[in-house]
Amino acid sequence: MITILKKNATKQQRDDLIQWLEARGLEVHVSEGEYQTVLGLVGDTSQIDEGLIDSLDFVEQVTRVTEVYKEASRKFHPEDTVVSIGDVRIGGGNFAMIAGPCSVESEKQILEVARSVSLAGAALLRGGAFKPRTSPYDFQGMKAEGLELLRKAKEETGMPIVSEIINVNHLPLFENVDVIQIGARNMQNFELLKAVGRTSKPVLLKRGLGSTLKELLMSAEYIMSEGNKNVILCERGIRTFEKYTRNTLDLSAIPVLREHTHLPIIVDPSHATGKASLVEPMALAAVAAGADGLMIEVHNDPERALCDGAQSLTPAQFAKLSAKVAKVREALA
Amino acid sequence: MITILKKNATKQQRDDLIQWLEARGLEVHVSEGEYQTVLGLVGDTSQIDEGLIDSLDFVEQVTRVTEVYKEASRKFHPEDTVVSIGDVRIGGGNFAMIAGPCSVESEKQILEVARSVSLAGAALLRGGAFKPRTSPYDFQGMKAEGLELLRKAKEETGMPIVSEIINVNHLPLFENVDVIQIGARNMQNFELLKAVGRTSKPVLLKRGLGSTLKELLMSAEYIMSEGNKNVILCERGIRTFEKYTRNTLDLSAIPVLREHTHLPIIVDPSHATGKASLVEPMALAAVAAGADGLMIEVHNDPERALCDGAQSLTPAQFAKLSAKVAKVREALA
Amino acid sequence: MITILKKNATKQQRDDLIQWLEARGLEVHVSEGEYQTVLGLVGDTSQIDEGLIDSLDFVEQVTRVTEVYKEASRKFHPEDTVVSIGDVRIGGGNFAMIAGPCSVESEKQILEVARSVSLAGAALLRGGAFKPRTSPYDFQGMKAEGLELLRKAKEETGMPIVSEIINVNHLPLFENVDVIQIGARNMQNFELLKAVGRTSKPVLLKRGLGSTLKELLMSAEYIMSEGNKNVILCERGIRTFEKYTRNTLDLSAIPVLREHTHLPIIVDPSHATGKASLVEPMALAAVAAGADGLMIEVHNDPERALCDGAQSLTPAQFAKLSAKVAKVREALA
Amino acid sequence: MITILKKNATKQQRDDLIQWLEARGLEVHVSEGEYQTVLGLVGDTSQIDEGLIDSLDFVEQVTRVTEVYKEASRKFHPEDTVVSIGDVRIGGGNFAMIAGPCSVESEKQILEVARSVSLAGAALLRGGAFKPRTSPYDFQGMKAEGLELLRKAKEETGMPIVSEIINVNHLPLFENVDVIQIGARNMQNFELLKAVGRTSKPVLLKRGLGSTLKELLMSAEYIMSEGNKNVILCERGIRTFEKYTRNTLDLSAIPVLREHTHLPIIVDPSHATGKASLVEPMALAAVAAGADGLMIEVHNDPERALCDGAQSLTPAQFAKLSAKVAKVREALA
Repeated sequence: MITILKKNATKQQRDDLIQWLEARGLEVHVSEGEYQTVLGLVGDTSQIDEGLIDSLDFVEQVTRVTEVYKEASRKFHPEDTVVSIGDVRIGGGNFAMIAGPCSVESEKQILEVARSVSLAGAALLRGGAFKPRTSPYDFQGMKAEGLELLRKAKEETGMPIVSEIINVNHLPLFENVDVIQIGARNMQNFELLKAVGRTSKPVLLKRGLGSTLKELLMSAEYIMSEGNKNVILCERGIRTFEKYTRNTLDLSAIPVLREHTHLPIIVDPSHATGKASLVEPMALAAVAAGADGLMIEVHNDPERALCDGAQSLTPAQFAKLSAKVAKVREALA
Repeated sequence: MITILKKNATKQQRDDLIQWLEARGLEVHVSEGEYQTVLGLVGDTSQIDEGLIDSLDFVEQVTRVTEVYKEASRKFHPEDTVVSIGDVRIGGGNFAMIAGPCSVESEKQILEVARSVSLAGAALLRGGAFKPRTSPYDFQGMKAEGLELLRKAKEETGMPIVSEIINVNHLPLFENVDVIQIGARNMQNFELLKAVGRTSKPVLLKRGLGSTLKELLMSAEYIMSEGNKNVILCERGIRTFEKYTRNTLDLSAIPVLREHTHLPIIVDPSHATGKASLVEPMALAAVAAGADGLMIEVHNDPERALCDGAQSLTPAQFAKLSAKVAKVREALA
Repeated sequence: MITILKKNATKQQRDDLIQWLEARGLEVHVSEGEYQTVLGLVGDTSQIDEGLIDSLDFVEQVTRVTEVYKEASRKFHPEDTVVSIGDVRIGGGNFAMIAGPCSVESEKQILEVARSVSLAGAALLRGGAFKPRTSPYDFQGMKAEGLELLRKAKEETGMPIVSEIINVNHLPLFENVDVIQIGARNMQNFELLKAVGRTSKPVLLKRGLGSTLKELLMSAEYIMSEGNKNVILCERGIRTFEKYTRNTLDLSAIPVLREHTHLPIIVDPSHATGKASLVEPMALAAVAAGADGLMIEVHNDPERALCDGAQSLTPAQFAKLSAKVAKVREALA
Repeated sequence: MITILKKNATKQQRDDLIQWLEARGLEVHVSEGEYQTVLGLVGDTSQIDEGLIDSLDFVEQVTRVTEVYKEASRKFHPEDTVVSIGDVRIGGGNFAMIAGPCSVESEKQILEVARSVSLAGAALLRGGAFKPRTSPYDFQGMKAEGLELLRKAKEETGMPIVSEIINVNHLPLFENVDVIQIGARNMQNFELLKAVGRTSKPVLLKRGLGSTLKELLMSAEYIMSEGNKNVILCERGIRTFEKYTRNTLDLSAIPVLREHTHLPIIVDPSHATGKASLVEPMALAAVAAGADGLMIEVHNDPERALCDGAQSLTPAQFAKLSAKVAKVREALA
């Protein structure tokens, strides 16, 4: 950690700070310049809150050299992590498609979608049972019943299932869920992160709409520091000033995260764009940028398709996308 | 709600959508133009998910005329809400200062700060016992013990206390807390919102760093729809590209929220700016813009002040700010 | 255009607004609801400033149905525009690589880079002669001399050249430049847009870092409304809160612009990411998302390569990228 | 400047970089850690492009200690700059109101507005003659004729005038303009900045919607480095994800710029918010935060008031605001 003191820092202020830092076990190297003094801090700085130092009046800047995350960092774990879910593997060159409806709505619906996406190349089945919705008046999901229907779909198709958790107290209900999803709105619900970190189930962690990649890695660190190393990161768009798209899908996240972490990285173009016509181009772009997997919304309910499936692909569209994804992966192999 | 169909929408698509909307109890007025068709939807559109319609291929745009929030809306509740906490009132012309340390650290610390901010004009005492931290390796608060120390400070000074909750299961511990705070990271932790909505305690709801004002109001609606109408909104900065400040304090939020809602609106300049030198100017600006209250970090622990109090004011600085706030309020009375 | 009046709009206000709109040649359809009145405006609304109406006290919302841009709009020109530069074509299924150094620095440099990128599949040579730099103390380019060196490189390799203009008065110097580039910082320098719009040279228009896609299209409209229809749009990253990348490359821009406009769309991953290691993944992603071309920085000056070429690829890296681009295009053909 | 090398940087890379830096006249201090090497660069680093170094593969981070701006920096010019325009002074404790219509529209209009805002306490008259508009089809201003009408208004009321320039070639037309405004869209039109920097007229420089405060200061530096030291900075809102306001007025800019620069800082709440009802609260907030002046849109044309004055205050509203501004300034004196 590098701390730069302002020109007008008094000797007293400087000495107090150095003493405070040394009391925390750090070695402090001082080098003085005409307009500032630079303190180089050597040792375990992960316990030091840089915000506190940065906010001191006489401090100009604080720069952290070593990131705070350790478990999630490629620096300490150079090899790619491969997450295994039954026979499915994600990361380290292994690619997987996750597909299914936004919400589980009925046995018929989830079974039909499961069968069709399985045929079209999906390795994992997704489906929401507990739905975090911006409005309290919107449909909140089928809850425990939805999880039970997912279990049936898994039984019939053999596909492992992915579903979102929104409350630590629901954890016992997720016994048969293979991958627990933490949604974007709960990316910094640290109590929930710690709770899933105490299980051994793979966790699919979505990036918050207003969260940096560093914060995403810190949230992964929350899970991993409790013992669970099976974390899959998911980019799903961030909030910007642009109005023609719901969110701005940040595909640079893929190569950037690849440099910083060994964890698998997947992309959800359905939620990021909110429009079926944008899903295919952005899914292919994610694959070309090196994603380890895709999470795609697929519906299969002709009667209710009008609205409910609007950001979802039909099974036919998904099959077509799946074939193109394979071609792009082959082209870049 | 207004829905605009693209020029190339087929008659079948149009009729299907109209039928779907009518099945949800809406009256649909159609008006055709050269380049598009406009559907005017009359009735209770709060149950309609505009995102779903917007994502249809043949739909150009969806515009919601009536906002989804009802309990929080000034349209339906024109009178300002006044939240009462003991003798303290916030809203409807009543102004209150909330002050105290970021974290409760010891009995001595919290009692000293409580006494000094009480003397300097603070009406409520704040102090964190459960701390949501970006890093799992940072100090997570004194937890139950911290709440107990707050209770003692309240007993001694008579000041009602404000403290943050981060887990639904901690609710029983908050029996003696007068105002429950929902932090920025949990603004869309809907399970937590519903839980505090089932209590009758005033709730201080902070805006998420990546959340719109509309979402803030929808989160207030979550609390209110469960029965608890005592919600105080708090602006504390949003995330932007600007790098010279930690966050961008969005003071327009005050007059804008004032138009949309009857709930009291306060501002936290300490967390927004992260720097003690910016707290006073932004606090005064918030008051001039019409805020119903301020939430200010104050520390009083000379031994540890070096770092822990860096974004906090000293009691003396707080007293000075308090006097200036009074003058600005008087000038604009 | 749809205008929604607030519940408390007086009859006088409503009638005044309607009269004002009718005076501008519009037909106004009124439909009254319980909480608001909706005005549907039919006719040529492109002359109406929606911001003005939106800012009226008694107006709740204004929604433009037909976009203001006409020349740039796919609605009025459904066929893809193909821009021809000598034998090179961009758009309508034609793809082109533009490559070259950030700045022209010497005859040797530009000739060597030109030869190497030409061999590796680039169709057009780029090189900055006038450089807009954030700091007045940074190198501002070789100016007229740089353009002359580009002309020589064109003479020798046969590659058409692309270079940025920053001042209307420099236009005569650009006689031998084949494609005039408008940089991100000048995207809303309307005087410059109008000036290049009065030429017949193809214009490569870069999106501003803080500009929406709609504004990019309005800037294209400025050029086209002066008579020049040869506009190529270029996405090069926008400004967001994310700090691990210099800018956030918004690849959704490709399919979204494709829906709204008939103009060719290219991507500049070098400036967007600022880091050589991110150029290849983002370039491939852009191609997979359907870009009509790429603009890539390539350097070839071993002596100065250390710093000057840091966000640039070497000719060897460019050749490798070029081959991968071809494979992805083939895979998706 | 501090440069941190990655763990895997080779000795060759390190030595090449050090040699390159030393060739640019810098002293390089090396300190090695377990996971990285830190280079401290001492000397005149303003000529070094940090982006170039940052983009090197083996570089982890670059931190500039001394900002690149010198003329604009408080570090080198601790005393507040006071800009004088006739008898009017801005900065260093001097406060001024700038008021007038968005566009000059007729002699009658500008004279009436000038008289009324002069009576109500405005020190300077603003009025646009050349209007940069997002759409080529919107009104572009009265141009030279507008400047002539402003001259008449100045003659009659004695108020100095402020008007925006959009083209270097228009400079001769601005002979009678007292303060030349550079609009937000031209904040990085460096050719225009250099041109006004070669005059001796005060320049009012508006922050771009997507520009950082550092870039604003660098643009001021462009003007000042040409010899013109009379620069007034103007905050007028930035672009964020929030949709309830046109822009997000960043009032923290006032105290933050105050720390970094000696130049006067004013605020334009009219353009930032786009809504008359938000102008007063945000204007008062700006004053409370320490602004040296305000720029307020005022109209005075009952016949055309319906739309043209929608984000403008009436003279009566301006007079009321002016009185409140005086009270707030008094309260904080």
